[in-house]
Amino acid sequence: MSKRLVVLILAAGEGTRFRSETTKILHPLLGKSLLLRTIEAARGLAPRRILLMAGRDPDRVAASAREAGIEVFVPKARRGTAWAVAAAKSALAGEEASDLLILPADRPLVRTETLRELLTYHRRRRAVLTVMSAEVPDPRGCGRVVRGEGGAIRIVGDGEAGPAALTIREIETSIYAARTGGLLSALSRSGNRKADGGIDPAAAAGRLSQAGLRVEAFMTPASGEILRVETRSDLARAAAALRDRINRALMDAGVTIVDPATAWIDEQARIAPDALIAPFVVIEGASTIGRRTKIGPGCQIIRCAVGDDVVVAAHTVMEDAAVESGVRVGPFARLRARTVLRRGAHVGNFVEMKATDFGPGAKAGHFSYLGDSEVGADANIGAGTITCNFDGLRKNRTTIGPGAFIGSGSQLVAPVVVGRGAYVAAGSVITKDVSPDALAVARGRQCEKPDWAKRRREKIEQGKKAEFEKR
Amino acid sequence: MSKRLVVLILAAGEGTRFRSETTKILHPLLGKSLLLRTIEAARGLAPRRILLMAGRDPDRVAASAREAGIEVFVPKARRGTAWAVAAAKSALAGEEASDLLILPADRPLVRTETLRELLTYHRRRRAVLTVMSAEVPDPRGCGRVVRGEGGAIRIVGDGEAGPAALTIREIETSIYAARTGGLLSALSRSGNRKADGGIDPAAAAGRLSQAGLRVEAFMTPASGEILRVETRSDLARAAAALRDRINRALMDAGVTIVDPATAWIDEQARIAPDALIAPFVVIEGASTIGRRTKIGPGCQIIRCAVGDDVVVAAHTVMEDAAVESGVRVGPFARLRARTVLRRGAHVGNFVEMKATDFGPGAKAGHFSYLGDSEVGADANIGAGTITCNFDGLRKNRTTIGPGAFIGSGSQLVAPVVVGRGAYVAAGSVITKDVSPDALAVARGRQCEKPDWAKRRREKIEQGKKAEFEKR
Amino acid sequence: MSKRLVVLILAAGEGTRFRSETTKILHPLLGKSLLLRTIEAARGLAPRRILLMAGRDPDRVAASAREAGIEVFVPKARRGTAWAVAAAKSALAGEEASDLLILPADRPLVRTETLRELLTYHRRRRAVLTVMSAEVPDPRGCGRVVRGEGGAIRIVGDGEAGPAALTIREIETSIYAARTGGLLSALSRSGNRKADGGIDPAAAAGRLSQAGLRVEAFMTPASGEILRVETRSDLARAAAALRDRINRALMDAGVTIVDPATAWIDEQARIAPDALIAPFVVIEGASTIGRRTKIGPGCQIIRCAVGDDVVVAAHTVMEDAAVESGVRVGPFARLRARTVLRRGAHVGNFVEMKATDFGPGAKAGHFSYLGDSEVGADANIGAGTITCNFDGLRKNRTTIGPGAFIGSGSQLVAPVVVGRGAYVAAGSVITKDVSPDALAVARGRQCEKPDWAKRRREKIEQGKKAEFEKR
Repeated sequence: MSKRLVVLILAAGEGTRFRSETTKILHPLLGKSLLLRTIEAARGLAPRRILLMAGRDPDRVAASAREAGIEVFVPKARRGTAWAVAAAKSALAGEEASDLLILPADRPLVRTETLRELLTYHRRRRAVLTVMSAEVPDPRGCGRVVRGEGGAIRIVGDGEAGPAALTIREIETSIYAARTGGLLSALSRSGNRKADGGIDPAAAAGRLSQAGLRVEAFMTPASGEILRVETRSDLARAAAALRDRINRALMDAGVTIVDPATAWIDEQARIAPDALIAPFVVIEGASTIGRRTKIGPGCQIIRCAVGDDVVVAAHTVMEDAAVESGVRVGPFARLRARTVLRRGAHVGNFVEMKATDFGPGAKAGHFSYLGDSEVGADANIGAGTITCNFDGLRKNRTTIGPGAFIGSGSQLVAPVVVGRGAYVAAGSVITKDVSPDALAVARGRQCEKPDWAKRRREKIEQGKKAEFEKR
Repeated sequence: MSKRLVVLILAAGEGTRFRSETTKILHPLLGKSLLLRTIEAARGLAPRRILLMAGRDPDRVAASAREAGIEVFVPKARRGTAWAVAAAKSALAGEEASDLLILPADRPLVRTETLRELLTYHRRRRAVLTVMSAEVPDPRGCGRVVRGEGGAIRIVGDGEAGPAALTIREIETSIYAARTGGLLSALSRSGNRKADGGIDPAAAAGRLSQAGLRVEAFMTPASGEILRVETRSDLARAAAALRDRINRALMDAGVTIVDPATAWIDEQARIAPDALIAPFVVIEGASTIGRRTKIGPGCQIIRCAVGDDVVVAAHTVMEDAAVESGVRVGPFARLRARTVLRRGAHVGNFVEMKATDFGPGAKAGHFSYLGDSEVGADANIGAGTITCNFDGLRKNRTTIGPGAFIGSGSQLVAPVVVGRGAYVAAGSVITKDVSPDALAVARGRQCEKPDWAKRRREKIEQGKKAEFEKR
Repeated sequence: MSKRLVVLILAAGEGTRFRSETTKILHPLLGKSLLLRTIEAARGLAPRRILLMAGRDPDRVAASAREAGIEVFVPKARRGTAWAVAAAKSALAGEEASDLLILPADRPLVRTETLRELLTYHRRRRAVLTVMSAEVPDPRGCGRVVRGEGGAIRIVGDGEAGPAALTIREIETSIYAARTGGLLSALSRSGNRKADGGIDPAAAAGRLSQAGLRVEAFMTPASGEILRVETRSDLARAAAALRDRINRALMDAGVTIVDPATAWIDEQARIAPDALIAPFVVIEGASTIGRRTKIGPGCQIIRCAVGDDVVVAAHTVMEDAAVESGVRVGPFARLRARTVLRRGAHVGNFVEMKATDFGPGAKAGHFSYLGDSEVGADANIGAGTITCNFDGLRKNRTTIGPGAFIGSGSQLVAPVVVGRGAYVAAGSVITKDVSPDALAVARGRQCEKPDWAKRRREKIEQGKKAEFEKR
């Protein structure tokens, strides 16, 4: 299929109804822009070339397209599909023998499969132009496909449609397959001007039909894929549809999703069978989740690798981190970039880690901050432990040996090493390395002032009384 | 419109099915009570007077109404619409020439617009009484509007309705427009007793018709607004409808709402174009959110002003706080009343602030509590910093100068001032002011007991062994 | 009803489409497995015996069933309903006079009530076999009930169904009532082999009909209950249906659920009238919530007892804890097993408690960890307080007397007692008991190095400059 195929992506619409500083097609939908989704659907066909006709905000669109390895051209004006093809004429020089797939960049749900079916139909019917159509419950505002005598296809808008056309529920999708040469020569014969920059498929199809060329309509059964994103409400609708599609595939593959309506999982994520996703979960980017792993309610996981049999308790947020098998983490844990929790480690609530290699079987059960550190196997990090990694100038490393015990409320002023098996007394500020197996203490001695609190209370009471009497 | 208009709000129902200690119409719906919503819809018409007929829990209802500047009267008994009007007779003395809008307090979705259309229709038709009706898919349990010969209107209940009436899907809404004088004199001619305190529109309309007066039905196209809240399920349905209405308006205005089904935003909130609301977000009260600002999943924002280009990461809770442009805050941050984050500040995870002015470019990246404090520009607050603002008697203030560096795990015992550019060593308890540019240290010296940890482990092992052997 | 009734639960399906290591019927649905739900529905009928025919993973299924007090038998092969009954023949010896209810274990929404209606119908009609049927919008893939002349019942599958049968929307549910003796003798007359282990109701019913025995179909109006769980998507659908059923009952009983679509509440939970459940809440196990108590957004409550007039603020996680009336807790609080918050206590953000008895009126407003401790009435726990309950060997207890004041950033090294009314200075490490009314201090003295920070900055600047010049 690929050798003879050129794809023309139309990204020229103004997207006015989006009311955005950013052109509509660069808005993200479950982690990928509308444009990128369109490019990926096209790429699935392995075409020889993909051309992108950019419109508003051409520099950013072009940058985004070039990043994806796509040719871009920016026409001086924009006036609909037929016009776009005409504008692409010079870019298409020499491609007359190829097939042309015209694909608007604002239908992000269309799958490669569906496009392939259109192309297959188009070739089998030996048409010059084939419009993809679909049957919808409410066709208002859409171009209607009118099938005339002998299969002649006409596309009429709401305005032009007579009462009969208004009952037609087959609409055009602005997706076309065409024979490049035939289409170009037909278009060159007459102008096709439309002021509003919108797509004008009626003219394109009509002119060809009048020219005696074969125009077909392929009605896709995948009517759920043709949603056109014109408003932010449409964007939300597309997101919900995509979420449902992704979640259905995951469930079919053996993942338990307790509430698929509140599980927002990017399609790049890979989740193993028997994993369980609780309600209100967000999983972004190319994350992986292992077998039997449970992701608790309210978790947010961004580009992380999570192993098998892991329990991620409620409201855990992790980004660019790795969690090996058998770990228990959360609730309210926060793992930041370059953190690795080794096999069987345990991280509890209100614990933050950054760039930390947390050894197998190590424990940090309660509020703590470990940054730029390495923690040995089976070490125990007490509540309130802080690695003071920033001295105002640079980030320094903390190393905690295997089996070490860091008493609660300790500050480890990096760079510092706590040796294997060493013990740091609670509430210590450690500024020098601690030898293996040693005890380090760095805190004040306890002393007592008897009845101080009592006297203070009495004084306070007197003070209050005095204040009261003054009034 | 206003000069001739009096609105009578009926709040006399028992609301038994709500099973609540609080009368139904005082229950909140997205931050405002049913009653307040009704009053606001009425007020949109700028009527000369609004009268409220209170029923159950009259004191609290009256208090709530008076707060909104509404006249209240509490009848001795309650027996339906017609009766209510009769009961209002003395209050309406002298208003015979005015129009009367009768509005039940348990239809919280009705918009001013829809009421205005009813009034316009009512006046144009020169009717004495116009009932607002709507077509619904399932009319069971509702009064049906029967349109007789010559446009005569009858309202029949489920009980009275013959088989033909049962196919009627046009129902009455208990919302009426009337000519005050005409209605009052018609009602005074005969009694209209109904035991259950429910609305009896049939009798009201029927009697007038029989009296030869013009009764009309205005079928509103806004059938989504007529939901009557009788149960908590209805309340939830109304909340969902209101949420969808609010979110649609926000999306139309250029806000990206990733999942409009899980975004709970009060209508007082003002959100700028290109702001992004992630799933599972609650925004309450008159909050404002600036352009390009991102609100992450699970955030709760109550009466806050958030500027442009702010990133509010997941699970951040803020209430009565202000966040200037360019700030990064969260995840798991908690901002309380009278907190201001100045331009470009950064607040990280597990940080709580209360009544704190946090300077431009200042940073507090990790678990900390700042209360009753002022933090200068570009100051750096280490992990675990605590302002000890409460001495058991009163709250005291902490002042941290611009460019100061508070080492991790420090306690600042207020009232205290850390001077501009000063440095507090990690783990210090600061009880006296720190001079500008000085270093303050207040902690124990580190000492080491070699092999202490090793001997302790051996002792523990022996102890365990002994314990084991004892068994 | 019970005396004559035997229930046969069929749990023999492979559940291949679940793609799970665990057999389908052991998967949980809102806290209870499909199997347990089926057993409970059966048990509601108070039958004389319940037999379970186990299939895949018989040991775990049998363990689960025996725990529920159910007899289990594991046939050597599994080939559908009729076969299953045949296989159960020896177990049913002597039960010929009883009624037999055949119940597949993968229809978890069926209520006892619905089964009782089936049995009542079955007995009234004096049938030998009564199949429960239901009318559904989309019958594809289901066995259709064909009602012939004189009421003869046939069940035909998709394959066998002619075009006429395809319009039938009455489907069989694989739930049957039978006269045990009649069914067994009919089945023994001929074999009923089906290769795929699936249910073959057609054969069972057909054979009996042919044998001249009375076969009936009882069409239940409760078509929402017959959902068969074959895939994880079905599991999610069943969960949503169950959630809606539970939430509707709670709302009918007077609980406000702001968003019933995102409130996941187990049916064991007991919630009092006028409690309010915010969006995104999970309540598991036999939790109780008192009157007027508010559960904020994002909370997770597992097997907890929460009293009246409690405010549980956003994102609070509690498990096996008790919260007495009038408490304020959260946001971001974490209560673990054996924690009790006494009347009027206040627990703020980022506070974790484990096995702690937290006295009436006591306060712990900011990040702290209290484990294995007892806190007296009206005690005040400063921010950053840590009970160092683990010494590397065992957990030790901390006792804080009534009215004590623990300064912020203190570590209490257990076992330790802080006496009634005592005061611990901020930042102290308390290793010895503190006398009542005394002040305990255990921290370093503050000293100052003038201009140290300034010189350091200058050195840093020089260093940076030097580094820069080296390049």
